[in-house]
Amino acid sequence: MISVSPTKPRLTTLITLLTDFGLADYFVGAMKGVMLRENPRAQFVDITHDIPPHNIEAGAFTLLAAYQAFPAKTIHLAVVDPGVGSARRPLVIAAGKQFFVGPDNGLFSYILEREAKARIFHVTNEKYFRRPVSRTFHGRDIFAPVAGALSLGVKPAELGTVITDPCRLALLSPERSGKGNLRARIIHIDRFGNCLTNLTQRELTPAMIEGGVRLKLKGTTITAFRQFFSDEGDHRSKLFAIWGSAGFLEIAAQNHSAAQLMKVAVGQEVSVSAKK
Amino acid sequence: MISVSPTKPRLTTLITLLTDFGLADYFVGAMKGVMLRENPRAQFVDITHDIPPHNIEAGAFTLLAAYQAFPAKTIHLAVVDPGVGSARRPLVIAAGKQFFVGPDNGLFSYILEREAKARIFHVTNEKYFRRPVSRTFHGRDIFAPVAGALSLGVKPAELGTVITDPCRLALLSPERSGKGNLRARIIHIDRFGNCLTNLTQRELTPAMIEGGVRLKLKGTTITAFRQFFSDEGDHRSKLFAIWGSAGFLEIAAQNHSAAQLMKVAVGQEVSVSAKK
Amino acid sequence: MISVSPTKPRLTTLITLLTDFGLADYFVGAMKGVMLRENPRAQFVDITHDIPPHNIEAGAFTLLAAYQAFPAKTIHLAVVDPGVGSARRPLVIAAGKQFFVGPDNGLFSYILEREAKARIFHVTNEKYFRRPVSRTFHGRDIFAPVAGALSLGVKPAELGTVITDPCRLALLSPERSGKGNLRARIIHIDRFGNCLTNLTQRELTPAMIEGGVRLKLKGTTITAFRQFFSDEGDHRSKLFAIWGSAGFLEIAAQNHSAAQLMKVAVGQEVSVSAKK
Repeated sequence: MISVSPTKPRLTTLITLLTDFGLADYFVGAMKGVMLRENPRAQFVDITHDIPPHNIEAGAFTLLAAYQAFPAKTIHLAVVDPGVGSARRPLVIAAGKQFFVGPDNGLFSYILEREAKARIFHVTNEKYFRRPVSRTFHGRDIFAPVAGALSLGVKPAELGTVITDPCRLALLSPERSGKGNLRARIIHIDRFGNCLTNLTQRELTPAMIEGGVRLKLKGTTITAFRQFFSDEGDHRSKLFAIWGSAGFLEIAAQNHSAAQLMKVAVGQEVSVSAKK
Repeated sequence: MISVSPTKPRLTTLITLLTDFGLADYFVGAMKGVMLRENPRAQFVDITHDIPPHNIEAGAFTLLAAYQAFPAKTIHLAVVDPGVGSARRPLVIAAGKQFFVGPDNGLFSYILEREAKARIFHVTNEKYFRRPVSRTFHGRDIFAPVAGALSLGVKPAELGTVITDPCRLALLSPERSGKGNLRARIIHIDRFGNCLTNLTQRELTPAMIEGGVRLKLKGTTITAFRQFFSDEGDHRSKLFAIWGSAGFLEIAAQNHSAAQLMKVAVGQEVSVSAKK
Repeated sequence: MISVSPTKPRLTTLITLLTDFGLADYFVGAMKGVMLRENPRAQFVDITHDIPPHNIEAGAFTLLAAYQAFPAKTIHLAVVDPGVGSARRPLVIAAGKQFFVGPDNGLFSYILEREAKARIFHVTNEKYFRRPVSRTFHGRDIFAPVAGALSLGVKPAELGTVITDPCRLALLSPERSGKGNLRARIIHIDRFGNCLTNLTQRELTPAMIEGGVRLKLKGTTITAFRQFFSDEGDHRSKLFAIWGSAGFLEIAAQNHSAAQLMKVAVGQEVSVSAKK
């Protein structure tokens, strides 16, 4: 069926999965089975299946943090889909030389915020769906077979029509709040209790670049900064700021969960000003 | 390096895994390592490793819910095996154009209930076992190498002899309880708190098909029915019935865990009658 | 359909992963993406990502328990790395016909204790790193690309220089404590609550081999021994010793968690003497 010549580049077969399905049910296995029926050469990488149930923002963030590590032509299948079975549209997005497949509910917002040249398709061609389509598991019956079709070389334009009005979440980037300050927020807390803010180096003002930043949240002020977690350069403060691996400023604590120390959750506002 | 001929069918190399081993120990990795020593081209899909420890019914259900999504010739390696090391038999089953490998303790009951033409083999040919065989981890030492052998084209008849008396759990299907009613039960609670009953469309009486069903369990009566989870057609009731993606009638709740609302667990009896 | 030339050995493409990253974040996906950018034919097996955060001993144990199940040339990528970003060295180890990649903090101690002929390399050739190298995620920026390079046939000697002073944890093996007795300890508690000690058959004295062992820990004395978990030969005692699948003596309980029954944790000392 597929003939591979050593002189031609390999077909795209890499499909990542990101869902809120957990790993205890049969959901993820069933999606992979469906894709392998279509394309026995599909390769899978699980980004995560532990997005909190129905938490679209969390899914959008983790997809954003992960996608740039993957090769061109990777297909990202993302399913956090509380509206499954309703009229919300199935999408395929071509962005950053990669593909994204999933529901039109904001899950791809942060990718679209970063990738200005994205092309977005409303998937309408039912020829590529698994039959019958259930009303409760489009991950298996629509999104997986569509990802499988992409992996076999089907073009997005064969799957549906271009749209320009995808559902979008509130912007990920922090807001200006006067006097050169920023209103940031905590967008993710990782396994180690590090609190990721939505602040990247792009938003820093010259005063912040020169003199460093002061973070205020929930009665706590943080001015300490570290280059790496076990860096004890500034040992006066248990809590410190650090540039994290996803490109965002994080609040961390040496050998402790910063989230537990500060008793904060995702969504917590963080006020950011120049240190001096 | 790999030359693929379009005229010959590909060897079976897809092996799924379903266990109660969890993901924190080395057990699953070791089974995969053993299979890759035998067949470096083996491809794996994890169905789940989070079956509650020693819960054979739960393993049997999840395998049933998953297997039909997979391509023909898939090998399903399933290990929930409290009797490891005892005299319970290792089995290979050929059913539904797929293979199943694991212990003879009822784990394949629901597959056998659905696939009337299954052929069942008691695996006795120790040539295909890893040596030495431990008394505590047949997943690694017997079932994984047997799955590896199948993936290389070894026939079930080379592995052992046909049997007709496999260990069976109580039937999955609901019982008739007089007056056209059914005595069903909750067989699985998923990550979202949806309660799967053992009722499929095959068991419905004409009166139920015409007028809908009434479910009674633990003092709760449910007559609301939805086509999909966010369908608000019948908004008088928080709890509703819905046909789930595995083909069973589920009890669900909009944006809540139905299991928590009803305070029920797997095994809960559900009485089913025609609504009108 | 796949014809493989029998005369040329297949390239090494099998990479296992063991981390303390959990499965809820983007960390593991990002490492795999980086390796697939380098080598699209890389195959992954997850040993576990649930090592308790920063617990180097636990990571070292699980790696030890798993590695021998894998084929020659397997590359084991292991990242439990509280010192990420500091001066601790990145290592590549060639041992037991396999490769190991990760930080120099003791994570490979138990492998080195077992594999006397290991060659250890301090990885210094930044040509093989992902650019820029973050200070907080060497799993993605150093260890994953180095594993990818090994999978493409790069020799360890091209990656850095031989060292002989790797960081080592306390020896895994039990200590002699006079009168032919041993001072062992609990080194792992598995999902089923079985308590693995560090005692292997190599340390047994002739008196223990002949007459069996007596284990004492936290006020409990265990002399019962079973061949397999459901073996009811010695039914007087709920707790019993059993040779586990990783080669260590375990303390287990029929259908119960031995760890919970004894209220013990990893690190608990176990005194071992001959039974008679």
